[in-house]
Amino acid sequence: MAGGVGSGLECQKIMDGKEISGVKVTPVHSCCLKAMATQPELGSKCHSTVVSGWFSEQVSYSGHGTRKVYYNNPMWPGEAHSMKVENVLFEGKSEYQEILVFESATYGKVLVLDNIVQLTDKDEFAYQEMIVHLPLCSLPSPKRVLVVGGGDGGVLREIARHKSVEVIDICEIDKMVIDVSKKYFPELAVGFEDPRVQLHVGDATEFLRNAGEGIYNAVIVDSSDPVGPAQELVEKPFFVMIARALRPGGVLCNMAESLWLHTHLIEDMMTICRETFKGSVRYAWASVPTYPSGAIGFLLCTTEGPPVDFLNPVNPIEKLELAVNYGRDLMFYNSEMHSAAFALPSFLKREVSALRDL
Amino acid sequence: MAGGVGSGLECQKIMDGKEISGVKVTPVHSCCLKAMATQPELGSKCHSTVVSGWFSEQVSYSGHGTRKVYYNNPMWPGEAHSMKVENVLFEGKSEYQEILVFESATYGKVLVLDNIVQLTDKDEFAYQEMIVHLPLCSLPSPKRVLVVGGGDGGVLREIARHKSVEVIDICEIDKMVIDVSKKYFPELAVGFEDPRVQLHVGDATEFLRNAGEGIYNAVIVDSSDPVGPAQELVEKPFFVMIARALRPGGVLCNMAESLWLHTHLIEDMMTICRETFKGSVRYAWASVPTYPSGAIGFLLCTTEGPPVDFLNPVNPIEKLELAVNYGRDLMFYNSEMHSAAFALPSFLKREVSALRDL
Repeated sequence: MAGGVGSGLECQKIMDGKEISGVKVTPVHSCCLKAMATQPELGSKCHSTVVSGWFSEQVSYSGHGTRKVYYNNPMWPGEAHSMKVENVLFEGKSEYQEILVFESATYGKVLVLDNIVQLTDKDEFAYQEMIVHLPLCSLPSPKRVLVVGGGDGGVLREIARHKSVEVIDICEIDKMVIDVSKKYFPELAVGFEDPRVQLHVGDATEFLRNAGEGIYNAVIVDSSDPVGPAQELVEKPFFVMIARALRPGGVLCNMAESLWLHTHLIEDMMTICRETFKGSVRYAWASVPTYPSGAIGFLLCTTEGPPVDFLNPVNPIEKLELAVNYGRDLMFYNSEMHSAAFALPSFLKREVSALRDL
Repeated sequence: MAGGVGSGLECQKIMDGKEISGVKVTPVHSCCLKAMATQPELGSKCHSTVVSGWFSEQVSYSGHGTRKVYYNNPMWPGEAHSMKVENVLFEGKSEYQEILVFESATYGKVLVLDNIVQLTDKDEFAYQEMIVHLPLCSLPSPKRVLVVGGGDGGVLREIARHKSVEVIDICEIDKMVIDVSKKYFPELAVGFEDPRVQLHVGDATEFLRNAGEGIYNAVIVDSSDPVGPAQELVEKPFFVMIARALRPGGVLCNMAESLWLHTHLIEDMMTICRETFKGSVRYAWASVPTYPSGAIGFLLCTTEGPPVDFLNPVNPIEKLELAVNYGRDLMFYNSEMHSAAFALPSFLKREVSALRDL
C-alpha cells in the first residue's frame, strides 16, 4: 500500500493510442473520460439509468460528439452509487448534455447531467457553501466575483451573503440547466434573483477573452467533470485567462474532484496553477455524500499582490453582518470547517508532488 | 432545509409497535436495524448480494435470530454503494454473522459482514488510523489498551506504533472474523503478531465485567453497526463498564456512524456518554469512501482525572520514535488531520443538541 491508495489501484490509462470504431483515440486517463452507454435512447416515462426503481451512475451516456464508446464508470471505475427513485420529474437533452431530474426516496430532488449526479436537495449545501466561502472569506472585502458554470444558482445564493460584493457575473454555457433549476430547484435558483447578478449565457473561455483585465476579486469555477464542454476548463490557457481577469491578490476557487479517486488530475491542475498564479496554491476538500468517494476538492490560487492566507480566513462569516442568516441558515460552512478543509491525508501529500512544498 | 439535513429526510421510525410474522416489534429507528433479505440462501459459486458481477449493499441478509424481514437499506435507506466483483474469495456463516470476502475491481479485497462493507484494501487505513491515533495521541504515554471488536487486526496494527504501550487486550466475539482476516487480509491481521497483544475471544460485556477496575489508559470500540451482536455496545450499561475499566483521565474512542445519516444515534450516544464520563465528550469524523455517505464518526470521552485536550494532541505521532514507519507508512493520519477531525458542519451542531454546549 506504500506506493498509492492501494497497490495498483490508482487511475490507469485505459486507452492507448488505439482506434475505436475507426476513430483514432489518443491516450487519456480513465478518470478524464465521460462514460457513454451503448443504448443511447430510452422510453419517455423512465430513464435508461433507472433500473428497478433505482438510479445508478454505473452506466453513463453522453450524447455529445460522434464517438459512442461504452466505459464502465471511467471517472470512478468499479463502483457505483445508487439512489431509489420515487419519480422522474424531467428529462431533456440540451445542446450540450442530457439533463435528468428525479425525486429520490431519501435525498430529495436530484439533478443529473450526462448521468453524473450534480447535486441533491439533501447535501447540496456542503459543496455550494464551501466553493464560495473558502475564497470569499479569505479576502477582506470582495467586490466583483465571476462564476463559471454554476447554472443551478446555488453558488450565486451563497455569494449573495457577502454584502461587500457589488457585481456577480455568471457565465453558464447551458441555458437549459438554468431553466430546469428555476423550475425544480427553487432553493438554489433563488440565487439568480439577487439584483447584483449579471447572467451571461455562453462559453466561459470566450467570455474571459473579452473580459477586462484585473477586474475580479474572485473567480469561482463550478464546472461539471472535465470532459465534453468542461474539458478545456482544466487546461492551461483557461487558467491563464482567469489569472489575467483577476486583480492583484485576487482568488480563484476551482472544483478539483476527489482526493481518493483523482490524484493525478489534482497533480496536473496544481502544477499548471503553480506556473500560472504567483501567489499561494492550496488544495482543500469537503464531505459530500452523493459525490463519488463522498468527498470533493477545491483548488485555491491567488495572483501576485496582497498575500492571501487561505487557512485562516481574514473575513470570518460569523462576523459578516447578515451573512449567516441571509435567506437561509448556513448548513455546513463555518470558520472551523474552513481551516479544517486544508488538512490533508498523508497519502495525498505523498502522491501529489505539487503538495509537498507547501 | 432549516430543520434537518434536507426537509423530512431525517431518519424515521419505520416500525411502530406492529407485529411482523407474528413477532411483536418495538419501535426502532430505521438506522438501528440491520437489513435482512427475503432470499436467505444462495449458490456456492456466487453470493446473493452479487448481481451481474456487482456487489451491492442494496439488499441485505442476516442469518442471526429467527425473524426474517426485508428492509431496504435500513441503516441508509434509499441508497446503495456497489462495487464490481472480480472474484468471490470466501463466504461463510459464523455463529454470529455471514462473512463474505471478495476481490473488487478497484478497491482491492473487501470484507463484508451481514452484507455491510467493513473494510476494503484501498481505504481501510483511514478508519484504522483515526480510531487509534485520535485517542492514543491525546494521551501522554498510554500503557494498557483494550480493543473491543476489531477482529480484522487493523486496529492492533495501529496501536503497535505506540512504543509506550505495554499490553494490548482485544476482545472479539467472532473467531471466524480473525481467521478470515489472517488468511485474506494479512496487512491488517499482522496486528495480531505483536507480542503485546492478548487475544480474548468472547463477549465484550462479559470481558469488561470481569476486568479490573481502572486498568486501561484507553478503550477502543471497533464494532460493527449497532444491531445484532453489537446492539448492546451503544447502550448505557456498556459505557458504564468501560468507564469503570478506565484509569482516571483514561480515554474511550467509539465508532459513531455517519454525521450525514445517523444524527439521532450520535445524539443518543453523546447523551449517554455525557452522563457516564465526567471528562470531555467530543465527536470527530473522517472520510472513508466505502462507508455509507463516505464518512465515519468517532466518539471520544474521558473519565474524571487529568484533563485531556482532544483537539490538540499532546502526543503527536510525528514525534513518536518509530511510529510513523512502524511496519508501514501512515497513510491518512497526521496531527493536522487529528485536529481537523473535530471541526463539524453547522447542521450537525444544530441537530445534535449534545454538541451545542461544547
